Amino acid sequence: MITIVKIGGHVIDDEQALAAFLDDFAALPSKKILVHGGGKLASRLCEQLHIPITMIDGRRVTDRATLDVAIMTYGGLINKRIVAMLNARQCRAIGLSGADANVMQATKRPVGAIDYGWVGDITPLNVDSNTLLGLLNLGLTPIVCALTHDGHGNMLNTNADSIASALACALATLTPVNLVYCFEKDGVLSDVNDTSSVIGTITRPDYERLASQGAVARGMKPKLDEAFNARESGVASVIIKNANALLKAGGTRID
Amino acid sequence: MITIVKIGGHVIDDEQALAAFLDDFAALPSKKILVHGGGKLASRLCEQLHIPITMIDGRRVTDRATLDVAIMTYGGLINKRIVAMLNARQCRAIGLSGADANVMQATKRPVGAIDYGWVGDITPLNVDSNTLLGLLNLGLTPIVCALTHDGHGNMLNTNADSIASALACALATLTPVNLVYCFEKDGVLSDVNDTSSVIGTITRPDYERLASQGAVARGMKPKLDEAFNARESGVASVIIKNANALLKAGGTRID
Repeated sequence: MITIVKIGGHVIDDEQALAAFLDDFAALPSKKILVHGGGKLASRLCEQLHIPITMIDGRRVTDRATLDVAIMTYGGLINKRIVAMLNARQCRAIGLSGADANVMQATKRPVGAIDYGWVGDITPLNVDSNTLLGLLNLGLTPIVCALTHDGHGNMLNTNADSIASALACALATLTPVNLVYCFEKDGVLSDVNDTSSVIGTITRPDYERLASQGAVARGMKPKLDEAFNARESGVASVIIKNANALLKAGGTRID
Repeated sequence: MITIVKIGGHVIDDEQALAAFLDDFAALPSKKILVHGGGKLASRLCEQLHIPITMIDGRRVTDRATLDVAIMTYGGLINKRIVAMLNARQCRAIGLSGADANVMQATKRPVGAIDYGWVGDITPLNVDSNTLLGLLNLGLTPIVCALTHDGHGNMLNTNADSIASALACALATLTPVNLVYCFEKDGVLSDVNDTSSVIGTITRPDYERLASQGAVARGMKPKLDEAFNARESGVASVIIKNANALLKAGGTRID
């Protein structure tokens, strides 16, 4: 059994929250993988280096300078900070981008109406599950950042929610996998204005009904799509919950 | 048998030289590890971020901001660039700092007359050879950057020549190791002004005689000290040679 946990910017940007989360993550008894997003560090470094941020339809365009910043922050500063902090907690963490050990070779997004630049789209077929299992069997805990590569020497910026889902689906063909998406709320809310309205279990029909009522927060849609894809592709359990409650019951179960 | 190769800034800063070197490195038939230094990228980023560079006796002082730049460039940009380029050459490279898989837990340099900041000193006892062998046995090639960690959650800036020597000495207790220091000259010169005066084999008495005559270039001393330490600690062969001649005979053999 493998637990795959994904954390995003809210935890990464808050030093105390990150330390508390890593206490919990280190204490998880199963084999495990952590996938982390970027946080504000990349945007801040872009600012300091006077690299303009280009967004199209809410998605960042990754030119060469922006990619370098992503590699420096996601693959460098944030990844190594988490790895060092986990090793200090007796969790033998090893940082990985998709290029490392060739674990995630993705496809550069084709240039259509929009050129998103150095962005990679990932599917479970892009994941080398056997190498990941090999690392886990050495007693190591992979800490995966939001970068893949194209197999021709180029790194690619890749969505961390999609990476977590692809890893879960790929590993689920070999062993039972639990996937946990951590974020800053207690779960999926039935009323976006009421933080106590956490849905215990959500099915795809529930999700489609909520979405048609406009009751799914815009930022939640891609995460829920990845979560349902994972569940329907054989991932044993998929839960969306607060990063401060990793070891506690609760959150929203995808079913 | 394991070959450990160290490259420095001259190769890393030159895109074509790096590509040619990585062609050769990928073609090395034995199990192998690459250790890389930093190059100009870190200094350039310090400049762009207006971080002053403090040198004492020719050694850089690593304050927190400088350490972050080292993590971003050595552990991020340079390491991932090399890893992606090697995977494109069918060499299953995996990037490592000392924190990753806890392979090199070093000691922060004690504050004496000078406080060098976040700098780590490494000995062979700090190296987890079994984990490195485990990775090599998975068919992976570790690409090690010039960073270690202190085991308490902090990264440390560590000399790449010292890392290469420590790795070689530690692994030599388990299996025969060849250590190759690559740099921009063809080997150790008997006359620093004559690039063709490459010494074929150098012994410690030779080295001490040359040093007493002032015939050892200042930047060469630490490298030669590490090279002799490694040879005298059981590393099967230690060679200093040009990075453009990895697969060719030549260079200076330490004996």
